[in-house]
Amino acid sequence: MMVEEYHGYVGIARELLEKVSAEPGDVIEIVRDDGSTLRGLLMPHNEFSGPDIIILKLDNGYNVGVRVSEKATVRILAKGELTSHPGEPVALSETALRPPPTKVMIVGTGGTIASRVDYETGAVKPYMDPKELAASIPEAFRYATVDVEQYMAIFSEDMTPATWNSIAEEVARKLESGYEGVVVAHGTDTMAYTAAALSFVFHKGLPGPVALVGAQRSSDRPSSDAAFNLTAAILVAAKAPFGEVTVVMHGETGDTYALAHRGTKVRKMHTSRRDAFQSINEVPLAKVWPYEGKIEMLREDYRRKSKALEPELGFDHRVALIKFYPGMGSDIIDFLLDRGYHGIVIEGTGFGHVANAIIPSLARARDEGVPVVISSQTLFGRVNLNVYSTGRKMLEAGVIPAEDMLPETAYVKLSWVLARTRNLNEVRRLMLTNLAGEINPRHEVRLYPRWYHDRL
Amino acid sequence: MMVEEYHGYVGIARELLEKVSAEPGDVIEIVRDDGSTLRGLLMPHNEFSGPDIIILKLDNGYNVGVRVSEKATVRILAKGELTSHPGEPVALSETALRPPPTKVMIVGTGGTIASRVDYETGAVKPYMDPKELAASIPEAFRYATVDVEQYMAIFSEDMTPATWNSIAEEVARKLESGYEGVVVAHGTDTMAYTAAALSFVFHKGLPGPVALVGAQRSSDRPSSDAAFNLTAAILVAAKAPFGEVTVVMHGETGDTYALAHRGTKVRKMHTSRRDAFQSINEVPLAKVWPYEGKIEMLREDYRRKSKALEPELGFDHRVALIKFYPGMGSDIIDFLLDRGYHGIVIEGTGFGHVANAIIPSLARARDEGVPVVISSQTLFGRVNLNVYSTGRKMLEAGVIPAEDMLPETAYVKLSWVLARTRNLNEVRRLMLTNLAGEINPRHEVRLYPRWYHDRL
Repeated sequence: MMVEEYHGYVGIARELLEKVSAEPGDVIEIVRDDGSTLRGLLMPHNEFSGPDIIILKLDNGYNVGVRVSEKATVRILAKGELTSHPGEPVALSETALRPPPTKVMIVGTGGTIASRVDYETGAVKPYMDPKELAASIPEAFRYATVDVEQYMAIFSEDMTPATWNSIAEEVARKLESGYEGVVVAHGTDTMAYTAAALSFVFHKGLPGPVALVGAQRSSDRPSSDAAFNLTAAILVAAKAPFGEVTVVMHGETGDTYALAHRGTKVRKMHTSRRDAFQSINEVPLAKVWPYEGKIEMLREDYRRKSKALEPELGFDHRVALIKFYPGMGSDIIDFLLDRGYHGIVIEGTGFGHVANAIIPSLARARDEGVPVVISSQTLFGRVNLNVYSTGRKMLEAGVIPAEDMLPETAYVKLSWVLARTRNLNEVRRLMLTNLAGEINPRHEVRLYPRWYHDRL
Repeated sequence: MMVEEYHGYVGIARELLEKVSAEPGDVIEIVRDDGSTLRGLLMPHNEFSGPDIIILKLDNGYNVGVRVSEKATVRILAKGELTSHPGEPVALSETALRPPPTKVMIVGTGGTIASRVDYETGAVKPYMDPKELAASIPEAFRYATVDVEQYMAIFSEDMTPATWNSIAEEVARKLESGYEGVVVAHGTDTMAYTAAALSFVFHKGLPGPVALVGAQRSSDRPSSDAAFNLTAAILVAAKAPFGEVTVVMHGETGDTYALAHRGTKVRKMHTSRRDAFQSINEVPLAKVWPYEGKIEMLREDYRRKSKALEPELGFDHRVALIKFYPGMGSDIIDFLLDRGYHGIVIEGTGFGHVANAIIPSLARARDEGVPVVISSQTLFGRVNLNVYSTGRKMLEAGVIPAEDMLPETAYVKLSWVLARTRNLNEVRRLMLTNLAGEINPRHEVRLYPRWYHDRL
């Protein structure tokens, strides 16, 4: 498919420039639909910019990416010739001369949002370059002065509890060194696990927002959600009123709003949709309009920013998450006990049940000082082991019901708790204490999503 | 809390009877809001009837339960005195004199729908008694002549592939002996697994509907969904146009409509809600209004009833379903291979990934002739191992992507496939062939539920 280009520009930018026959080197004025006006030297398009970005060299010498919509107008102020070369330094923002006072750090860890595919070699190229960022998401740099570091480059499916710990340490260092908010760019596969991990590390309080963000589609695809999500995450890190760990991702398929989900209540619910991340058994913390700079809090019970930062680091690496299924024997649990695992989280059926045939192995775990935590594979709702005789027998065997915690959150929490104590009573007490919003004591009908029950 | 009673009647039935001072033994006439009129001797309320049921002894000697709404009227035709005693035979339906020609069998297997708690002893009492059924769901007996058997009494969490097989055999026997539809009353915890199992056994065709049904709340609780669901399931078994295995349960929280879900696409999504069962990546087969006797098909691609019945029985008991989580090592997979498991289903992250560190164990499984099937813990969406390098390496190690199959369905299918063949290429071919609606080749935006993104 041929794409019409005009000095490298495509889409809306091409239309606006071609209409007035603007040439690189011309001094032009762009009036945007919000009334804002920018003047500068038109630069050729560069590979990092989206289809709706026009690159201007401002009087101060910086190049900026100006996002335009169909309602914008372009006017030539003076015909000229381009004397400077593309590839010169690009300013971090339209407001480079008066950088916003809020400082936000982007900690890159890897994943789709931090990469673009080189179509010739098939290799993945890092993307977390400030220049590229500035060109692709000019709005975000209105909200904060943004620094970027590629802290690690790892597929999120390869992360382990040691990785969570390392990311938490880096986030703590950045907050301690004066950044008012931190964005963690992360692969989406296990982002919810890492968000829960950071939530427990920082459960005593945070001086500013920590926003995990990812992309479901890489930034070089037209349908990419990378710029939208990253802008929303920078806005949250810079302006949100809370000191909490959140996941910031598309709220629905369109480019309307993002959501800031509480790190302990969020789950990736779809393999590919932009709005794959959703809060389970809980309303998200906030709705975020990245291009309007607007954050609407959806709850009053958010944690205010704290003055002190007291991270509680450390995760136990010998915890397993297993799913119960009909026909499952006790061999897997016995194996984990034989191997010296320190804790087990089970996704039971319904209210949290497992087969009665397995219960003796749960009692063995208790006798050997290994906590067994019970969540439900239904995901929605609350574990209740008091209703049926199977559940009561499981309680007698010493299991710990995970309330309405997600199985993934229960796994992360048990790993974190076991790094603090291996005393069974103390583990039980901590697991049943709501430390970071992981337990919602009250559910409402509306927390269950609405399903489609009509002909397609 | 005191409940006002009138000869044992409560609620609407009490109001209607008390208004005209009807006494047991009076000959009364009930005119219902649908215009239907029933005359008979008023009987005292019995323990099995709901609050909106009036018991009449008809001229033919049968006792029937008549469901009444606020719009019904009661008139005394003759004052009398009760000469017969309560506890006499209760007719199976209002239309006992002209039983409906369609024959439906209810196969009881256990679970909440088949039990009520004896509050004195705490013991669970079987419920599947035709008399009790007649008194609690009079409408259902308009749709079919219903026979009931308690085939087994087992908590569904204790079921195994052997149980699925046994239930399938009994369903086949009932269909072969002339029943036009079969209802399987089942515990809800693993009902979706059994539904998938029966779907594969009967994938070559069914002469009539097979409707699995359960209750989220036991029938002795005012909020019970037992009567509503069972009436809907009997309606489906008697009148639905398809020859498929379905799960019939509440579609939303109110007593409006039930849904008939395809057995391979349904999942219990909530621990306790009435509408816990929902179709994933698929629209349900039909919407069902149990009291209006109405079935609306939501899809055109349902399987028509077949003439022949060729069940393919048998499940492999050596299949495991495991969930990948960050930090998971290869020890669990190696253990399953060491123990001689015949197949493994993994719930990967995102598009179906596992940690790269585990991939050598997946290759070992392939080398040892053990199929590894990959589903996604996101539940929604489709596995795609071609997007990222991790996925491509997994494909090189021989894994079988489960398309958009639910992990639970993939587990049941692999167990069923391995009872037919252990040849890896043949297992792959069967797993990737859509046998019973388990693979939906086309998704639509509306198949993802709508989430609540506002303040509560």
